Amino acid sequence: MKVDGRHFRSIWDVDGTARIIDQRWLPHEFRIASLESLDEVATAIRDMWVRGAPLIGATAAYGIAAAMGRDASDANLRDASGVLNATRPTAINLRWALDRCRAALQPRAPEARADAALVLAREIADEDVEINRRIGLHGLEIVREVAAGKPNGEPVRILTHCNAGWLATVDWGTATSPMYQAAEAGIPVHVWVDETRPRNQGALTAWELGAHGISHAYVTDNAGGHLMQRGEVDMVIVGTDRTTAAGDVANKIGTYLKALAAKDNGVPFYVALPSPTIDWSVTDGLTDIPIEERDAGEVTHVQGTGTGGGISRVRVTPESSGAVNPAFDVTPARLVTRFITERGVCPASAAGLATLFGERAA
Amino acid sequence: MKVDGRHFRSIWDVDGTARIIDQRWLPHEFRIASLESLDEVATAIRDMWVRGAPLIGATAAYGIAAAMGRDASDANLRDASGVLNATRPTAINLRWALDRCRAALQPRAPEARADAALVLAREIADEDVEINRRIGLHGLEIVREVAAGKPNGEPVRILTHCNAGWLATVDWGTATSPMYQAAEAGIPVHVWVDETRPRNQGALTAWELGAHGISHAYVTDNAGGHLMQRGEVDMVIVGTDRTTAAGDVANKIGTYLKALAAKDNGVPFYVALPSPTIDWSVTDGLTDIPIEERDAGEVTHVQGTGTGGGISRVRVTPESSGAVNPAFDVTPARLVTRFITERGVCPASAAGLATLFGERAA
Repeated sequence: MKVDGRHFRSIWDVDGTARIIDQRWLPHEFRIASLESLDEVATAIRDMWVRGAPLIGATAAYGIAAAMGRDASDANLRDASGVLNATRPTAINLRWALDRCRAALQPRAPEARADAALVLAREIADEDVEINRRIGLHGLEIVREVAAGKPNGEPVRILTHCNAGWLATVDWGTATSPMYQAAEAGIPVHVWVDETRPRNQGALTAWELGAHGISHAYVTDNAGGHLMQRGEVDMVIVGTDRTTAAGDVANKIGTYLKALAAKDNGVPFYVALPSPTIDWSVTDGLTDIPIEERDAGEVTHVQGTGTGGGISRVRVTPESSGAVNPAFDVTPARLVTRFITERGVCPASAAGLATLFGERAA
Repeated sequence: MKVDGRHFRSIWDVDGTARIIDQRWLPHEFRIASLESLDEVATAIRDMWVRGAPLIGATAAYGIAAAMGRDASDANLRDASGVLNATRPTAINLRWALDRCRAALQPRAPEARADAALVLAREIADEDVEINRRIGLHGLEIVREVAAGKPNGEPVRILTHCNAGWLATVDWGTATSPMYQAAEAGIPVHVWVDETRPRNQGALTAWELGAHGISHAYVTDNAGGHLMQRGEVDMVIVGTDRTTAAGDVANKIGTYLKALAAKDNGVPFYVALPSPTIDWSVTDGLTDIPIEERDAGEVTHVQGTGTGGGISRVRVTPESSGAVNPAFDVTPARLVTRFITERGVCPASAAGLATLFGERAA
């Protein structure tokens, strides 16, 4: 989407070398980084220069391309895949992208692998853009219906958690795509942006939406239940890092709490679900999805723009207190109103997914 | 409770002048402030040098005492009460303490009011300590039962939100009182401390617990649901700023989300409820309790210890994004397992409260 009037994707390449928006500096600074090697790609994923399940998948594909450019042997293909697979444990797209790369490259002669890997990385990125565009169009129909029920053109108030925006994908975003499509269709929306502690990815969502001119307000993660109780939320749309074949949704920590509040207040709760995010191999999200535990420093410290203008970090907690930092939680399918996928909208269940993805669900 | 081995209350007086722990600097610095006038007391409440419903009530009583020391006329008694009443809209204890002061002082001759007001302020503070001590003893019985069901002396894992600790009261705290009592009784507890955005009062709770040697971990407000899903929370205890006669609980924003998660996971959810916090005049918490909207800067900025050591503030959000900051939410009585009051434990309902407070509930 647009930044200062210029269109950007979150990842692209220049002569085969990946360029990314280094998201560690957002929303304070807009910096572009070049990822020259497998190690740099692995670092960028692990240390969250890039984040968001779909973007992680595309970035990993560029990592394979970088590795094949250096050494296209079977051993290096396997090793590179292993290195990348170990960077983040929860996002299914990472494994999906790596499996796809290995399946496509393994049968080829080593000397053809570097070029093929680059073509594939671009293809995965382009496919993600198209998937998200379509999620937006299907979500738009839901937003349009809500808008039709409003008097006097009042905005449709959508709450979202984390950044399932274009910065988390290659373009459009997943949860934000219906918002951007609604804006393009002239339907007024107002977005409640959960700050999403500990990393405050809500600040990325706010930055995105602001750059695109979409009305929004930043709220604490604690506020959503209250806003729903007061009738100030028309719908919730969130993304997902991994969804099971039975419809359980792993997403950023805190998503589950919003789903409970939505249920308790009769607010529809939608998950924008690109199909590469579905893990067809598991059903029970609570037992089958590993939840990444991240560094306690993410909880005890907060980064932002200091009074002097530069980026600085402050410690919020007493020095002697420890912290625990699970990065994701699982929202059971029973709390999800509908999935919004690139193929359409369906119930959050095995049967629901089968209506759209019969070839996989079978 | 203790700080560096020395016992403190959160408010006391020296020759009739109130001294408080200036909580704006905690957990980073321990500073004591002297409140010399009504205006200073009003500022201390409004700007949250002191916070927590019971402590606000006691501080307000010292504010009346300061006002009476300067001008003990009927007009000034009324004016001082008005000034203090306007400082924070949600805490019922504030109104309760002011009503009590006016009822006690109005019938007296003006020349007797200054001394009487000081005696009353001390009395309100002492009563709060006793109320909280008793809440702790009743809560201790619940903790003891949970502990008895644990193999090998494993700790009872208690989640709490905000700071309903001794810093929010005059001593002991409300939600923390059972924890301190358990520690004194030799029952191991481990406390999950919600950070409680936007003001991170969890850091105060962590500081308190650490200073007293109680095991705890600081977690984001988003984490509690996940911890409950994983069976890592035995019980929740929170405080309240105002509870209706029917049992609806206004407390720090985000409490409602934890109550929903507790219900969904079969985790008992207790509210430590000193009876002055009960608003017998209202029943429906959602319609009858005004919810304070605080400054957006509390959400967009975070304060902490900078790398240089001093306290500094960083902005987390993009400069152009606005924020909305409701300070409390309402947990419906149906989500509360039991109230823990100074008179004992009861169901969260009008009938439940009547078993302990028959004289008021009738």
